[in-house]
Amino acid sequence: MGYQNDLILRSARGEQVERTPVWLMRQAGRILPEYRAVRNSLSGFKELVETPELAAEVTIQPVDLLGVDAAIIFSDILVIPEAMGLTYKMVEKQGPWFEKTIQSLDDVVKLKIATAEDLDYTIEAIKITKKELNNRVPLIGFAGAPWTIFSYMIEGSGSKTFSKARKMLFTEPELAHQLLQKITDSTINYLKGQIVAGADIIQIFDSWAGILSPQQYEIFSMPYLKQICDAIQEVPVTVFAKGAYFARHTLAQLDCNTIGLDWNMGIQESRNIIGDNKTLQGNLDPCVLYASYSEIEKQTKEMLRTFGKSRHIANLGHGVYPDTDPDKVKCFIETVKSYQH
Amino acid sequence: MGYQNDLILRSARGEQVERTPVWLMRQAGRILPEYRAVRNSLSGFKELVETPELAAEVTIQPVDLLGVDAAIIFSDILVIPEAMGLTYKMVEKQGPWFEKTIQSLDDVVKLKIATAEDLDYTIEAIKITKKELNNRVPLIGFAGAPWTIFSYMIEGSGSKTFSKARKMLFTEPELAHQLLQKITDSTINYLKGQIVAGADIIQIFDSWAGILSPQQYEIFSMPYLKQICDAIQEVPVTVFAKGAYFARHTLAQLDCNTIGLDWNMGIQESRNIIGDNKTLQGNLDPCVLYASYSEIEKQTKEMLRTFGKSRHIANLGHGVYPDTDPDKVKCFIETVKSYQH
Repeated sequence: MGYQNDLILRSARGEQVERTPVWLMRQAGRILPEYRAVRNSLSGFKELVETPELAAEVTIQPVDLLGVDAAIIFSDILVIPEAMGLTYKMVEKQGPWFEKTIQSLDDVVKLKIATAEDLDYTIEAIKITKKELNNRVPLIGFAGAPWTIFSYMIEGSGSKTFSKARKMLFTEPELAHQLLQKITDSTINYLKGQIVAGADIIQIFDSWAGILSPQQYEIFSMPYLKQICDAIQEVPVTVFAKGAYFARHTLAQLDCNTIGLDWNMGIQESRNIIGDNKTLQGNLDPCVLYASYSEIEKQTKEMLRTFGKSRHIANLGHGVYPDTDPDKVKCFIETVKSYQH
Repeated sequence: MGYQNDLILRSARGEQVERTPVWLMRQAGRILPEYRAVRNSLSGFKELVETPELAAEVTIQPVDLLGVDAAIIFSDILVIPEAMGLTYKMVEKQGPWFEKTIQSLDDVVKLKIATAEDLDYTIEAIKITKKELNNRVPLIGFAGAPWTIFSYMIEGSGSKTFSKARKMLFTEPELAHQLLQKITDSTINYLKGQIVAGADIIQIFDSWAGILSPQQYEIFSMPYLKQICDAIQEVPVTVFAKGAYFARHTLAQLDCNTIGLDWNMGIQESRNIIGDNKTLQGNLDPCVLYASYSEIEKQTKEMLRTFGKSRHIANLGHGVYPDTDPDKVKCFIETVKSYQH
């Protein structure tokens, strides 16, 4: 493809790299004053998601300002339920809120299977971003994992326990599977559209993986992750199942290139469980970026040493917290980029 | 002591039992209409905590109504910060809220080390409960783990990430240790008072254990848990560190009798990591109680079979959810009580 910097693609594929590539989850976001300036000129978060030129602009900001080795398209995992028929609001400081939720089989039947056309604002944002990036670094596309999207569609908002969503798995497993399948079909359509538009890697976020029991994760999340991984063969795929430490051995069986680790997951232990055929991504505690520069350097180097040079994409173990000093983020990035294995 | 039913004490100590004992976290609570009747007659949750006669009444309800093998004193882990000088409100449907939080070393210095006398309402509730229980079953006393209490004292409320509390560990580790020590000293005073008043077992709840990295858990939680376990030699101690799967091998080194498991933790895996010298408590997914009676029986039996007869105290892997049908709770309890190993 002729990227000036294709480190992340080569690392995902297990090829040789000169150094470890680095990017941050939520790098296009509130940590950057330049992002906040764009965001504050609009009515809300969703307007930014749905305005391709501006979404592209904030996607590219961290490449220019922080020097990361990949861009990730600015969007939201909840565009999928919206495209299926459930609109949501992003309530300031509280998170997403759905007016209508899924409570019956009839609700599921009424949902449409989304196509890439239904999400043309993100597809268009990807096209603009690709053009403006001009092959400097690869672009990551993404979607939520079906289980995580399902949780929001049942609960209607975030939750500490997601017990309504989990209740549904016990009381109406058939409804759950039908909904999960519709989400999966929609997600595959969407991701294929992202790839056609130019996404070079795909990441699947299973943000609420950690609230399922190991048994239920196998039944209600894994088969749908598998369908997505099997369907996406065009580009490397990363699966980040936050909190699903118990599922690392089965995640390792997925046809994906990279497994994301959160900061609770031991690096060496994860490598032993997952084996040598996957790239690992992560996993510095985002709170380390609140520490002194010398402490950030120390902990980043320790992380890099433990992962080793090949098959590692440096990142935090979760999205960067909004109140993190951008200079501390740069310290993390520069430490990775200058590290000699 | 001459209990009619001392199964839980014997199981905690690794002695022989005729059958597995069973109780539920949050058994004295909103699942019972009889609890809601008492609660609704008052101005709020805290009035119930602070009225010994009524706290004793709701403590005993699940013994009478559900047939559990232990009572747990009705109280709240946040009585400790309040006794130290930070008052809180319990906001309906939102959880605890502290008007003032700890932000500086000066704030820490101003806090007092709580004594059992500062928490006389709970001590009195324990005395009344013991009298009314009349040795039918043992009474569990409890407190929050220092790390969990620390989190609330910094954040001032619940949080998805507890990033303010975790930030403090990186930016002001000395302040953190001083505060954790004051909480620990207060907690030991409180627990000693509970034991003198009649508590037969002590449980330490480290509810936010799972948001720390393995390294930070060793530094900021474990030493304080150790101090508490070392100080409490009078009665069996249970440590429930929710989400701290990564710390099971070090939790096993504590001088306690029982380790609580959440529903993410594999039973056999946990036994292998923790060894045979601890009793394990847990760990059915609370959402299983939303399933059919036959499914509850099936999953409960499967759990009992996997744990084995000795060194197991049956429980859920988290507090029972408030909207659970009490008849489903009874089904869980009866299944445990009638199970033939």
